[in-house]
Amino acid sequence: MSTLPKALEALIEALGNLPGVGPRSAERYAYFLLKSDQYKSSKLAAALEKLHTGVKQCPKTYALIDADLDVSELYSDPQRDKTVVALVAEPFDIIALEKTSLYRGTYHVLGGLISPIDGIGPEQLHIPELKKRIKEDEVKEIILATNASVEGETTALYIQQELANFDITITRLARGLPIGVDLEYADQITLGHALEGRQNF
Amino acid sequence: MSTLPKALEALIEALGNLPGVGPRSAERYAYFLLKSDQYKSSKLAAALEKLHTGVKQCPKTYALIDADLDVSELYSDPQRDKTVVALVAEPFDIIALEKTSLYRGTYHVLGGLISPIDGIGPEQLHIPELKKRIKEDEVKEIILATNASVEGETTALYIQQELANFDITITRLARGLPIGVDLEYADQITLGHALEGRQNF
Repeated sequence: MSTLPKALEALIEALGNLPGVGPRSAERYAYFLLKSDQYKSSKLAAALEKLHTGVKQCPKTYALIDADLDVSELYSDPQRDKTVVALVAEPFDIIALEKTSLYRGTYHVLGGLISPIDGIGPEQLHIPELKKRIKEDEVKEIILATNASVEGETTALYIQQELANFDITITRLARGLPIGVDLEYADQITLGHALEGRQNF
Repeated sequence: MSTLPKALEALIEALGNLPGVGPRSAERYAYFLLKSDQYKSSKLAAALEKLHTGVKQCPKTYALIDADLDVSELYSDPQRDKTVVALVAEPFDIIALEKTSLYRGTYHVLGGLISPIDGIGPEQLHIPELKKRIKEDEVKEIILATNASVEGETTALYIQQELANFDITITRLARGLPIGVDLEYADQITLGHALEGRQNF
């Protein structure tokens, strides 16, 4: 005999599939939805149903775009400089860079980072498509905007070698002290990068 | 111009409505579902759609039950002792008590705890229905199984007074040291309760 109604158990199980959601959180979400108006569950259900049909990958930049668009608006926009391409691992990295409001170039999503432990090799990343773009759009600069992690560094290094024969500038995001962090709390590697990359004042 | 596809934004917003889910977690869940097979989103959507139609309150105990049941199986089961009633605040508290496998009585869900700050007064709790059950089922013992919080204690005290005229035993869950906790780390109030409620060895 189950202690919980089947419909509630099914929802708790489905919510428990989300990354980082344990059984207690799933219970909490399900009970919240049950106590809330039915409209909340229906709205979430509708959003879920439309997810895969409403979203597609941009065939040019591999960003996530509305299914009725041809290419990403961050690419088709004439105000964006197509000769500068920021290379990111995942589509959500674009949002982080866009939030700075400081970047007027375009993006290219690799679709991951090289990580032998997770079985991701360079052949799974959108590198051939990047090379095609470099030729087609006469790209002048590639900004390696990968994470400051082992996988991010490995991928950046690999791509730098892959693009060695192109006549382009390859840059990467500066490593240094994050704003608001005290020097004494910064880790050695960050501090090392900050020292190495010191700038004229 | 939005950076994200509308369908993805709608899902992130809907997921962000869940308690304790911030924008970053909502993004993570949505992206996970987008990268996963469509089946996962559909399954979650179906579970959400069935939630309100598949679950109802037991008219006797106010536990959550399958919509096609008349009363909770924890009440209708002839093996459960109807003369002993554990009084809990929320339906999920029943699961916690059932997991102990030590309780063979029935339950009554109050539907909350008295909390003036949240605008919950005793008139919103299922107390009249409890009194009716006490008479109908010739209840002998009420176990106050409310949280060991201010609201839980207030509610327990209120109910004890409300039931003063009934010829029943009123007990409550023991307060004391939780298993696995060192004496020196227990808070004063818990330790005080443990001392007061000390048992023969």
